[in-house]
Amino acid sequence: MLNLEFIREAGERIRPFVHRTPVVTSRTFDEAAGRRVFFKCENLQRAGAFKMRGATNKIRALSPEERARGVVAFSSGNHAQAVALASRDAGVRAVIVMPSDAPRTKLAATRGYGAEVVTYDRQLEDREEVARRVSEREGLSVVPPYDDYHVAAGQGTCALELFEEVPDLDALLTPCGGGGLFAGASVAAKALRPGVRCFPVESELSDDTRQSFIKGERVTIPPPATVADGMRTQTPGALTFPVLRANAEDVLTVSEDEIVETLRFLLFRLKILVEPTGAVAAAAALFGKLPPDVGRVGVVLSGGNVDPEALARFVAPTMA
Amino acid sequence: MLNLEFIREAGERIRPFVHRTPVVTSRTFDEAAGRRVFFKCENLQRAGAFKMRGATNKIRALSPEERARGVVAFSSGNHAQAVALASRDAGVRAVIVMPSDAPRTKLAATRGYGAEVVTYDRQLEDREEVARRVSEREGLSVVPPYDDYHVAAGQGTCALELFEEVPDLDALLTPCGGGGLFAGASVAAKALRPGVRCFPVESELSDDTRQSFIKGERVTIPPPATVADGMRTQTPGALTFPVLRANAEDVLTVSEDEIVETLRFLLFRLKILVEPTGAVAAAAALFGKLPPDVGRVGVVLSGGNVDPEALARFVAPTMA
Repeated sequence: MLNLEFIREAGERIRPFVHRTPVVTSRTFDEAAGRRVFFKCENLQRAGAFKMRGATNKIRALSPEERARGVVAFSSGNHAQAVALASRDAGVRAVIVMPSDAPRTKLAATRGYGAEVVTYDRQLEDREEVARRVSEREGLSVVPPYDDYHVAAGQGTCALELFEEVPDLDALLTPCGGGGLFAGASVAAKALRPGVRCFPVESELSDDTRQSFIKGERVTIPPPATVADGMRTQTPGALTFPVLRANAEDVLTVSEDEIVETLRFLLFRLKILVEPTGAVAAAAALFGKLPPDVGRVGVVLSGGNVDPEALARFVAPTMA
Repeated sequence: MLNLEFIREAGERIRPFVHRTPVVTSRTFDEAAGRRVFFKCENLQRAGAFKMRGATNKIRALSPEERARGVVAFSSGNHAQAVALASRDAGVRAVIVMPSDAPRTKLAATRGYGAEVVTYDRQLEDREEVARRVSEREGLSVVPPYDDYHVAAGQGTCALELFEEVPDLDALLTPCGGGGLFAGASVAAKALRPGVRCFPVESELSDDTRQSFIKGERVTIPPPATVADGMRTQTPGALTFPVLRANAEDVLTVSEDEIVETLRFLLFRLKILVEPTGAVAAAAALFGKLPPDVGRVGVVLSGGNVDPEALARFVAPTMA
């Protein structure tokens, strides 16, 4: 079901509601990385992340009856904002289930987009359970963060655009949390350019996908403490993992320091703000995690939402 | 001498050596500013600022004999890096006279581009005097930071590009230190669109141009302590001021808080890094300093070079 046609349909469906983000290159980065890198800047996407694509596709694909009742989503971050904004665009009621300790800019942005926010205690409650209760009680359709073909297809549209602009890439790198972005993007990439080599990238501290890839089945890890807060999933998605197994050549990992150093490089040299999760794939390119024969690499900078407090820590010289 | 033809020649001369920077828009910024704003992103220029344009034009316009001997420049910041990089591009020796207390990233970047750095004590020595000594001793051509027609024409090329992309602007705003950028950009703008209204923008703490504009002659102020370090000139240029008098409708000023808040808005909402000086013109748009009947505004984001220490201060929540 997740094939090029389905992703192209998603692209048509969401086009009026998302940015076609720019593809940016930098001689400075290329020299440091030792290869030619093409950044797909989803940090410049509406609501600050690629999540806007999947949320819009899911919501726009609902039946008129479902849209009339509304949607519910559980997310600690960018998916929440995306569902809130995509719902407002579509005139659909949205309830977002967020942990009470989510970054306050993300809570505020979600409410700012007009969504109703229901908070829960991350230590005591299960977010999927909370969302399911809300969904059943009020007849709302769930917009899952990744484990859904419409959502994954929406995320994959960023790869459609990237390969349209730069058709001759040797490899595609995306950050990998639950795997929706990688699933959609790798299906699009392989369909448009069959020989392209696809690599999901994780934080070393959050390597549930790498462990699962090696073992050949979904592994669950304890809650990871990575700075890449969009990557704190504990196991790959049930729908996304088989796609990842089929399309990934390898699962790459980067250290926490490498993530922060890459964020700083992108900020101070390229002058663009990328959040830690968004910098993970770029870190793999910058710190030589790719096979040596990969020359031209597409890298998804997946988001740019950073709390001021966090950014102050990342850029302080003691972090260097 | 500073006319459209001269600026177009500059554009042809520098084209292979500078970026054609993007023009960026943001619904979020427009809503906050209450007008339609088109940002010319010179923070994404080579060496991180529009200064690369003027330096390249000046150096490329030298005679072969002058180029063989080399150039010297005095600057505490972006002009230094620009002259260093433009000289390296052209295979020309460069000596840069910088204050010993210049931001260390700027000292390092200048040396990194292959220039020889001569430091001086800002409290005890006059930088123009130091540069003149070096120039005379070694037969080097001076590349002035603003008070030179080739330099101002080079800076003005950013307005050529902006009006080519967005011809129907009502107004043009640029930051104003010595006035090279405003002189070049306003001449280009008025030639391409005679009715356009041009506004240089300063920090309130560094309003030598505003005072001069009101008085009708060049006024010198004490060293200003503004966070906009590219704007610490104490008097407008002798060549640039008459151009400014002819082309400026008014000189706008913004407070230090408005500058930092604008920097934060551009960083956290638009995801682009702009230095304080670079945010000054945007601050005038964001904080309602323009006449109410100005609808479509071009704003030059003049540079993006910020020290990590400084940025950590700007983004820390206590600055909010």
